[in-house]
Amino acid sequence: MTLRDEIHEQPEAIARLVDRAPAFGQMAARLRADELDHVLIAARGTSDHAAIYAQYLFGIHLGMPVGLATPSILSVYGAELRLARTLVIGISQSGASPDIVGVLEEGRRRGVPTVAITNDPSSALGSVADEVIDLAVGPERAVAATKTYTAELAALALLVAGVRDPADPLRADPALRDVPAAVAATLRTEAEVAAAAGELADRAACVVVGRGYEYATAREWALKLKELAHVVADPYSAADFRHGPVALVDEGFPVLAIAPSGRPAADMAALLARLRDELGASVLVLSDVAETRALGTSSVPLPALAEHLMPIASIVCGQLHALHTTLARNHDPDSPRHIAKVTRTA
Amino acid sequence: MTLRDEIHEQPEAIARLVDRAPAFGQMAARLRADELDHVLIAARGTSDHAAIYAQYLFGIHLGMPVGLATPSILSVYGAELRLARTLVIGISQSGASPDIVGVLEEGRRRGVPTVAITNDPSSALGSVADEVIDLAVGPERAVAATKTYTAELAALALLVAGVRDPADPLRADPALRDVPAAVAATLRTEAEVAAAAGELADRAACVVVGRGYEYATAREWALKLKELAHVVADPYSAADFRHGPVALVDEGFPVLAIAPSGRPAADMAALLARLRDELGASVLVLSDVAETRALGTSSVPLPALAEHLMPIASIVCGQLHALHTTLARNHDPDSPRHIAKVTRTA
Repeated sequence: MTLRDEIHEQPEAIARLVDRAPAFGQMAARLRADELDHVLIAARGTSDHAAIYAQYLFGIHLGMPVGLATPSILSVYGAELRLARTLVIGISQSGASPDIVGVLEEGRRRGVPTVAITNDPSSALGSVADEVIDLAVGPERAVAATKTYTAELAALALLVAGVRDPADPLRADPALRDVPAAVAATLRTEAEVAAAAGELADRAACVVVGRGYEYATAREWALKLKELAHVVADPYSAADFRHGPVALVDEGFPVLAIAPSGRPAADMAALLARLRDELGASVLVLSDVAETRALGTSSVPLPALAEHLMPIASIVCGQLHALHTTLARNHDPDSPRHIAKVTRTA
Repeated sequence: MTLRDEIHEQPEAIARLVDRAPAFGQMAARLRADELDHVLIAARGTSDHAAIYAQYLFGIHLGMPVGLATPSILSVYGAELRLARTLVIGISQSGASPDIVGVLEEGRRRGVPTVAITNDPSSALGSVADEVIDLAVGPERAVAATKTYTAELAALALLVAGVRDPADPLRADPALRDVPAAVAATLRTEAEVAAAAGELADRAACVVVGRGYEYATAREWALKLKELAHVVADPYSAADFRHGPVALVDEGFPVLAIAPSGRPAADMAALLARLRDELGASVLVLSDVAETRALGTSSVPLPALAEHLMPIASIVCGQLHALHTTLARNHDPDSPRHIAKVTRTA
């Protein structure tokens, strides 16, 4: 089972999660999530990018501010946290990292509801949580996480839909049914993505830009490029990028941009035009909008999908791009150097 | 007035803030901060790194979880946020960015206390907040923020000390008195820092690593290197660095590490030893501990200072390093390309 195989398993894995939608409604009812004001999420690495997605999803759909836990506050500094009216969520593929488990234990001590999102419900994280969302995507053997990431995003979207309509989450968010086909459509762009990936064959660094929901995609895409292709890929929201890092860009500097239709689209388009036409950057644009793709020096189409679910499809394009960049740089995507599958941080 | 001048103004600017300690206690009393459970901070760019520092400071000293606002949830997506028992803080040098102002306006609408930390109390941010902390460091003319950043950190530390002891903040945190001298001592290492900066003269990229309080320093140091020296500097907490980005490191790859004494010191030392001895990285270590400095291929001493205040001194070393890296790369630190002093994000 290779990384590429796992990337291609994603439509099925997500379809199985969407089929379990009623269970997410039942869980939301047990959590009494609508009586909670805040969310605190503990996660690291790829799962931390799912947490960033959750910041937008819970904030926009439920009005709940999401804090990303800094687990070392508890594990290294021994702090005790006020967690009144807070839903505590731990996200971890393996469920094995002690500091993530520690944040859920703190939630239990404070008597607030805790949810584990993991691919191993029998893990320490699964054992400590009130509610466990089993990603059930099958063993992830590649060191670089792919199918667990998109499953984490889908699980979060299903949980939010469950809070909005515990009786029928898919009534609250019918677009969830479109996700497996959209991911499958993205996989069919692999040849175009592979052609675009040649661009980074000889570059040491690049920038990845997204905004809103797609900031999570920028972060996760950059991580894949770092761990697999050894390109120093620096992720930014379009807003923060203007605050300094834009200084990195000179003639031909590679910028990767996720710019689907949606609320931040005009802002992203303005940035893309400036990057290419004023600063001379080499810009790869992912978008479902032909006019936006035309702002890039190269582009790959995204499928039609509701804006808040698009990150589940757009990152698949990023995964394929990182895979083919890795091959173009003559590295082995199935044996990334220096890193282990499970990282246990105290 | 050059960037270097503003870097050297910092001991005095911070001393003036510490002299205003009683006002921070009075402010904390008016806010009834001890009756609040959560903190939500809106900030961008350099000020966002002050917000990261606040996550550790409020979490460890007050047990208050700090969420970093994603302002576009309000400004782009039009969400309404539940903000019960939440202190809303906006941090902005100029106080002019509409999306940061928007988060404080949302706080006002919800009837929760709001604080502006800004160098321009007459700005939009200053006008909308219940309480205004005027950094009062004088005009910051250099495009790259330096003295406003350390003043923001000192203001946050004074505010937390004020919550702990409204009658006498310096009784709660007497180490605050040591900060100006510690920053002055750091400035005296400029020649050593300049010598170490030559390392990056011909490199496109590097990684900056810190943990706990010093994660904020890693983020801010990396931003200075990007905006001034055009080095793609990727900041990581030591914990997240092991989750993939360590794959970037090969023989001679430059790593910058902030590793002062304190709770994460043993974890940082283990990472530094691995980076240099197993992976062959070129590691510049900032530390107040001689044994930790010996783990680097080069090092610069930090002054003695309480762990939670050390970021106010350690970033000064990072600022000097970015300045001298910029000079070594023949760029002009006083005219960074493409960026404006005030960034207005809608």
